[in-house]
Amino acid sequence: MVRSLKARGLAGEMAAEFVGTMILILFGCGVVAQVVAAGIGDHDSIAWAWGLGVTLGVYVASRISGAHLNPAVTIALAVFKGFEWRKVAPYALAQTAGAFLAAMLVRWNYTEVLNAKDPGLTIKTQGVFSTLPGNGTLPVGDWAAFRDQIIGTAILVLVIFAITDLRNTAPAANLAPVVVGFLVVAIGMAWGTNAGYAINPARDFGPRLASWLTGYDTAFTDQYGFPYWWIPIVAPVIGAVIGGAIYKYLIERNLPADAPLDSMPAKDLEPAN
Amino acid sequence: MVRSLKARGLAGEMAAEFVGTMILILFGCGVVAQVVAAGIGDHDSIAWAWGLGVTLGVYVASRISGAHLNPAVTIALAVFKGFEWRKVAPYALAQTAGAFLAAMLVRWNYTEVLNAKDPGLTIKTQGVFSTLPGNGTLPVGDWAAFRDQIIGTAILVLVIFAITDLRNTAPAANLAPVVVGFLVVAIGMAWGTNAGYAINPARDFGPRLASWLTGYDTAFTDQYGFPYWWIPIVAPVIGAVIGGAIYKYLIERNLPADAPLDSMPAKDLEPAN
Amino acid sequence: MVRSLKARGLAGEMAAEFVGTMILILFGCGVVAQVVAAGIGDHDSIAWAWGLGVTLGVYVASRISGAHLNPAVTIALAVFKGFEWRKVAPYALAQTAGAFLAAMLVRWNYTEVLNAKDPGLTIKTQGVFSTLPGNGTLPVGDWAAFRDQIIGTAILVLVIFAITDLRNTAPAANLAPVVVGFLVVAIGMAWGTNAGYAINPARDFGPRLASWLTGYDTAFTDQYGFPYWWIPIVAPVIGAVIGGAIYKYLIERNLPADAPLDSMPAKDLEPAN
Amino acid sequence: MVRSLKARGLAGEMAAEFVGTMILILFGCGVVAQVVAAGIGDHDSIAWAWGLGVTLGVYVASRISGAHLNPAVTIALAVFKGFEWRKVAPYALAQTAGAFLAAMLVRWNYTEVLNAKDPGLTIKTQGVFSTLPGNGTLPVGDWAAFRDQIIGTAILVLVIFAITDLRNTAPAANLAPVVVGFLVVAIGMAWGTNAGYAINPARDFGPRLASWLTGYDTAFTDQYGFPYWWIPIVAPVIGAVIGGAIYKYLIERNLPADAPLDSMPAKDLEPAN
Repeated sequence: MVRSLKARGLAGEMAAEFVGTMILILFGCGVVAQVVAAGIGDHDSIAWAWGLGVTLGVYVASRISGAHLNPAVTIALAVFKGFEWRKVAPYALAQTAGAFLAAMLVRWNYTEVLNAKDPGLTIKTQGVFSTLPGNGTLPVGDWAAFRDQIIGTAILVLVIFAITDLRNTAPAANLAPVVVGFLVVAIGMAWGTNAGYAINPARDFGPRLASWLTGYDTAFTDQYGFPYWWIPIVAPVIGAVIGGAIYKYLIERNLPADAPLDSMPAKDLEPAN
Repeated sequence: MVRSLKARGLAGEMAAEFVGTMILILFGCGVVAQVVAAGIGDHDSIAWAWGLGVTLGVYVASRISGAHLNPAVTIALAVFKGFEWRKVAPYALAQTAGAFLAAMLVRWNYTEVLNAKDPGLTIKTQGVFSTLPGNGTLPVGDWAAFRDQIIGTAILVLVIFAITDLRNTAPAANLAPVVVGFLVVAIGMAWGTNAGYAINPARDFGPRLASWLTGYDTAFTDQYGFPYWWIPIVAPVIGAVIGGAIYKYLIERNLPADAPLDSMPAKDLEPAN
Repeated sequence: MVRSLKARGLAGEMAAEFVGTMILILFGCGVVAQVVAAGIGDHDSIAWAWGLGVTLGVYVASRISGAHLNPAVTIALAVFKGFEWRKVAPYALAQTAGAFLAAMLVRWNYTEVLNAKDPGLTIKTQGVFSTLPGNGTLPVGDWAAFRDQIIGTAILVLVIFAITDLRNTAPAANLAPVVVGFLVVAIGMAWGTNAGYAINPARDFGPRLASWLTGYDTAFTDQYGFPYWWIPIVAPVIGAVIGGAIYKYLIERNLPADAPLDSMPAKDLEPAN
Repeated sequence: MVRSLKARGLAGEMAAEFVGTMILILFGCGVVAQVVAAGIGDHDSIAWAWGLGVTLGVYVASRISGAHLNPAVTIALAVFKGFEWRKVAPYALAQTAGAFLAAMLVRWNYTEVLNAKDPGLTIKTQGVFSTLPGNGTLPVGDWAAFRDQIIGTAILVLVIFAITDLRNTAPAANLAPVVVGFLVVAIGMAWGTNAGYAINPARDFGPRLASWLTGYDTAFTDQYGFPYWWIPIVAPVIGAVIGGAIYKYLIERNLPADAPLDSMPAKDLEPAN
């Protein structure tokens, strides 16, 4: 049975990660372009469309590849859940390529409004593609962004591990992707100040590269001239491992050994002794 | 079993597409009237009410007709999923008629606020009914709108194919209509700049006709005087076929052959080798 | 089996309708007070909290009474679904009493902010409790409000009939209350201009009475001096019957005779002939 | 079977309550910091992120401890549902500790924006951590806040009891945490005026202590100089017991004795006599 679930080889899994991450970034960079360059919508739109983009990207890819869509998640699964290490680099490559292509499509489609808003293609609309400390305007430095990305990604992975753990209270009826999307909505609303909630190296590096190739000359530095691009790559990986460890040592080992697959939160309200 | 699922003939299916699309447009044109003419709500309201309108229209029609509610979706199903070609024109007709009637009801109900906001019935409130490049105000031309409609509808159909594919991770418990609605919410937030996310020929042409018949003399042209009306018909059909093809060649053929109907995203976290 | 589902008599059903409608109005009048009197939130908050209030009220009452929470829905169920006519008046009474008590609690809890915003307790904050044509400020007359309430309630009942029809695509896993809430969210966003989407005689009359008893002397008239209070009672009942009839004659009779209880929207994409 | 559901001892349950409440407050205090100190988002963001934070915290903890995440809920479960009294204090301690740690992380991560917005660490940004009457600015006194917390927590517990009662219409497929989150979203939109909807002693006291230890000297008093800190502890407990009692006496005793676990709201539309 488990064998029959195996996708048709690594190439198929990479295709799924590629398309799934592409869908995520089509919504993610798309909504920031719409809000920042065209002035349609507000920060709530950004949080919702990023989160729903995760939901939709996961629906596309999940049966074939598990829909990581994020190298930090892939690494956490390798560290804690037995995901094969030999697949980590191919997955990360496919995710980054999907994010890159999606960002190129956003760049192309929103050419006119980007040019109208920011003819010089400066840091002013860099946030459509990649993240900056304090979103480029707040008095927040690189260290604040670094620690923020650790915390944000730790939250992401801790909760993903909870939601997808069949011994915990995992949503059934194939609805976990909706809850994962809600998780990213909430991260966007509560943890987007210091570093624009990259929490995903592919989400940040792919579009950053796309913007640099299409005229954003300062894409790899921040408003302080610091080569910021590696922070949204390194910090999320650290955070992902921390979040996975908290789940493993504080939650997973306390789970009942033989919990049924479908339970209600109120399940143990009846005294068990 | 499959036979018993067949609706009671094409007339019944057309009735379902008619009512389902009517519900969609009652919410869709309704919310734009409320925001643009009455000043109640904002662009987030527009995105949510259009998306939830899709959810609700699908719940009305889905058992009988599959709830396409969109000729571009109907054509994509004919190209890729064996939907009968002889039914395509009747479905498109029923969808357009439902959209037309709904737009007439919106036009009638919101007579007073439309007159107060835009006594001349000009392009200023045309967007209540049909789409324009850059929503009539942004510096976006007809080509930008054309390519935008291709991309937007490709995203729509790619994700619909994923959500409704029982071999993929389709939502169970009859909740797929909710996820399809979330898809349209996200498209509204991220892909509504260049062309108001028509992504549906019936949604655009039916209300456009209704507005033209009730005093909007310039309903068929855009702010540049260009006969824009055919772009939200032709481009979505092209996009729908592209989106369906991406799903077929990059996702569908990589799906495991005998996937069970209810799976968790974490399903393959256990190594399968 | 059906017998065992019967609640413990009409008194129990009335208690459920009372508490369920109380929950609905605690959220409904509560959010308008928060937005209008305290200036916290916006129209989207109003639409969401009313809709989620419906969801939560339905969860409280649905097992016992079916959670109509609305006399217009109760009447439509009597006309089309065999709900006993002898229970219609008791249900309507319980619903109105629950709405009245909830409005009294809102009136009491928000005393200070209501006094600060509108010391004279005028039409300026009447909308916290009951509806007005054009929400008291738009150039919309009583006839526009009347027709609007017919359309809005027709949409409500048509879609409720679809969502709760087990032969259609009713949400399973006890999640229909969530979708009914989304329906009311969308009505608030798209059909709230002309008459504040009462679409429920108990929701309007109970709080109107509560406001009148606590100092709102003009609670029963509108900004034109017209005795408006009966419009949100009569028009919703007419609309409910129209919406039920559209469902019955255009959807219900076209449903396949032996549809299974859990189906996917994509069910009939495979040709059935 | 019930035994097998028992978590691995009280320490494990406390770990779950600790981590679950930490997740809740990471989102809750996080979003207020983002909105109030950084100016990103609005009150709708606050309502959504608090509510989704509840959903996500419940998913983390529910299998092990039932995910109360709130001492008022724990006490209500002890009073009405047989939860062991000897566990009440340990649960409350774990919840408060989790809230405290989360608030310390928010305090640390948002140091720069808090300093920029409110260098003196005054009542101006106290609301990031703990609640105040009228959110510190509205003309609302301590008694109004006290009664508000009773009503708000009564609503919370009444609806939680409904949603988690398997004899009522409890959401299945492990989706009750989503509906509990929607409940808190709606409370934030409709019952957040007088006292910032603490409705949870741990949520309020833990972050209040964290803010006091890190420079907020007036953390334990309100804008009137009143030692306000005990109101969001005492009033929610009173409200929780009232809400539980309303559920027990008006709903629970009217439930059919042998209701099946999965029912539709429309279940009793067929006459039962």
